[in-house]
Amino acid sequence: SRELFVLTYGALVAQLCKDYEKDEDVNTCLDRMGYGIGIRLIDDFLARSAVKKCRSYSETADMIAQVAFKMYLGVTPSVSCSSAAGNEFSLILDKNPLVDFVEELPAERASLCYCNLLCGVIRGALEMVHLAAEVTFLQDRLKGDAVTEIGITFLRKAEDRKHRRN
Amino acid sequence: SRELFVLTYGALVAQLCKDYEKDEDVNTCLDRMGYGIGIRLIDDFLARSAVKKCRSYSETADMIAQVAFKMYLGVTPSVSCSSAAGNEFSLILDKNPLVDFVEELPAERASLCYCNLLCGVIRGALEMVHLAAEVTFLQDRLKGDAVTEIGITFLRKAEDRKHRRN
Repeated sequence: SRELFVLTYGALVAQLCKDYEKDEDVNTCLDRMGYGIGIRLIDDFLARSAVKKCRSYSETADMIAQVAFKMYLGVTPSVSCSSAAGNEFSLILDKNPLVDFVEELPAERASLCYCNLLCGVIRGALEMVHLAAEVTFLQDRLKGDAVTEIGITFLRKAEDRKHRRN
Repeated sequence: SRELFVLTYGALVAQLCKDYEKDEDVNTCLDRMGYGIGIRLIDDFLARSAVKKCRSYSETADMIAQVAFKMYLGVTPSVSCSSAAGNEFSLILDKNPLVDFVEELPAERASLCYCNLLCGVIRGALEMVHLAAEVTFLQDRLKGDAVTEIGITFLRKAEDRKHRRN
C-alpha cells in the first residue's frame, strides 16, 4: 500500500529540511539518495517487468513511464519528445501520488524540489543499463505549475561521440 | 510496489544515522516520525479496511497483524498474548519486508532498532482510536534473534483506573 510509503517519504523530506537550510542542498541530497536507490531498484525492475531491451531513447522513455512508474507509483505519466535530436523527453504527471499528503510548500521552501528523489532514482537506474541521463523537474504542481513535468535528457554515449569524430 | 518504499526507508535510516551519533537518538527519532505517520495513516486504514470497532485488546492486536500489516507491508505477523492481564501482545514476524535490502547492522550500530518507525506508527494509530500503548521491538533478526518480535502493551484507560479506585 502506497500511503505508508508516501508518508515515510514526507518524513524523509522533512528531516532533510531540518538538516539543510538551503533548498538546493535538500534537492541535491534527495537526488543523491534517489541515485543510490535507482542503482539497486533496477534489478528488481528488470526481474519483475521482464521487459526486452529498448532500441531507442523513445522506447526507454515509454518504458519508464508505462512500466516503471506504473509498477512503483501506480500512475502512468504521458511522454513527449521535446527535442529535434530525439534525446530529450518529458514525463508529464497529472497526478503525483508522492504529494498526496502535501498541501503546499512552506513559503521559506519555495525552491524545494519535493520529489527530487525520483529524478535520482531514474538517473541511477538508467546508468545501470548504460544510459547516461540528466533528470530534473521542469514543472511542479506544488509550485503552482499546471502539471508536474520531469525532464529526461539522454546524453550521447562516449562511443557515439568518438565515432562522430572519426 | 514495496521495493521503492523499502529502499527509501533505508535512505531515511541512513540519513538519521548521519545526523545522530547515538543509536538511541536514531531510535527515538524513528519512533517520533512513525508516530506522526500513524496519526495520519489511521484515517486511510479505517476508510479502506472498513473494519468494525474492536471489543477487546486481543481483537485490536489481531486487527493490527492481520489487516494493517497485510495492507501496508504485505505480511501477516502471528499474534500471541504475553500477560495474564491480557493487555500485552507480541507480533511475531518470520519475514520483515522492511529489511529486505539490509544484510546486517554495522558493528558500530549494534543498538539501532532499524524498523523503529513501525512502533511509532502503531502507537500513533492506536492513539487516534483512543488506545494508549507502548510499542517496542523485543526481538530483531537483524540483531541475531530467531524472529522479529514487536511488543504492544495496552495501557489501562484513565476511566478504568478511576473505576477501580472507586
